Amino acid sequence: MSTITASEIKFIRSLGEKKYRTQTGLFIVEGEKLVAEAMASGFTVQRVYRMDEIGEDVMKRITLLSSPSPALAVVEQRKDTPETDFEALSIALDGIRDPGNLGTILRIADWFGIDTVFCSPGTVELYNPKVVQATMGAIFREKVVYRDLREVCEMFASRGKRIWGTFLEGSDIYSEALSDSGLVVMGSEADGISAEVGSCVSDRITIPSFASGQGSESLNVAVATAITLSEFKRRLL
Amino acid sequence: MSTITASEIKFIRSLGEKKYRTQTGLFIVEGEKLVAEAMASGFTVQRVYRMDEIGEDVMKRITLLSSPSPALAVVEQRKDTPETDFEALSIALDGIRDPGNLGTILRIADWFGIDTVFCSPGTVELYNPKVVQATMGAIFREKVVYRDLREVCEMFASRGKRIWGTFLEGSDIYSEALSDSGLVVMGSEADGISAEVGSCVSDRITIPSFASGQGSESLNVAVATAITLSEFKRRLL
Repeated sequence: MSTITASEIKFIRSLGEKKYRTQTGLFIVEGEKLVAEAMASGFTVQRVYRMDEIGEDVMKRITLLSSPSPALAVVEQRKDTPETDFEALSIALDGIRDPGNLGTILRIADWFGIDTVFCSPGTVELYNPKVVQATMGAIFREKVVYRDLREVCEMFASRGKRIWGTFLEGSDIYSEALSDSGLVVMGSEADGISAEVGSCVSDRITIPSFASGQGSESLNVAVATAITLSEFKRRLL
Repeated sequence: MSTITASEIKFIRSLGEKKYRTQTGLFIVEGEKLVAEAMASGFTVQRVYRMDEIGEDVMKRITLLSSPSPALAVVEQRKDTPETDFEALSIALDGIRDPGNLGTILRIADWFGIDTVFCSPGTVELYNPKVVQATMGAIFREKVVYRDLREVCEMFASRGKRIWGTFLEGSDIYSEALSDSGLVVMGSEADGISAEVGSCVSDRITIPSFASGQGSESLNVAVATAITLSEFKRRLL
């Protein structure tokens, strides 16, 4: 067994808190597959702890998951501001609070070939362990930029790009003219798109319900993102 | 404050366990909105407990949620076997284990006007509190039938209906001919569609990835269900 000091254990555990992640610029990745993806990515992996080296008891003490996995890595947060390809389709998230939703949306964006995901400052932190795990590795491939979304919209608008916003009422996404570049804005779980960001939207779109009578009032935001991106992307085929 | 006995508290808490739900044929619904939907539905509500009547302390003792809500109802499970409309589109879930996924799928089915959802016996129990909450009320509108999926497929096949199965490899869903009746089978999170059920599938379909390089390997099953139903339903427009 390789040794691990008490202060090292304490340090790793502290990375479960946003305050310490921000202070150190580090985050935790857990799971054999996810750790391997971190190491193969452009991210800098500071150290990897393996259960067969440090033992199950120590792994149980440092894990942020409900049950320990075979590997845990301490990884450096990405500090560069990635460039945006304005000729591609990007998405913007306005105040997504649930870590599982953010992680799932990154996984969906990755699937649909969306490179850049803008997040409002009120969106849950990217390096929250629940976000990291829910991305299933997409966190290592997506460019995620936290920035005031009015500024982001302005960047797209100044280049003549359309800014779609998804609302409970708007043009039917299935018949609306879509395109292969621009910005798609998704609103928060509770409040949808904020008034300030909504005023920057050029095209209000909606996913119509097919329920015959009284149906569900809304879709989960990750689910709505998936349907929206599916519809944008299939049009290119 | 109305009174509530210690044995009543114990009884309600016991409904957090599948064993007692099955024994009693009851389940728990929490939240002002969900309780109101239960009462307006065809389900029989045995009793409603309100925080302003029994007090916050008691509510904290009976809630199955992390924080108590203003209302909790004890509701009777549906015992009838609903009829299937073979001229409509139905879905079948083969071994979905995650309660959040099952609940989200029912919400999606409700949105897309799917009346009947078949579940393999290995699918998580419908009345699991996490399923109930995740449906956001769709549990009161959807017909959910637990049954061997090979029998279900046979029912559709004998009526000349197609049985689509979603796989990581298959015909591109965006170009495949779809129809407004038949059965769409979704596989489990870990294993996809089982070999036995897969052999009953007439059309293997897949949602293609649009990632340019190495992208995510799969989509969450609720997300895949949403994209699939969106594609089936938009064709009717």
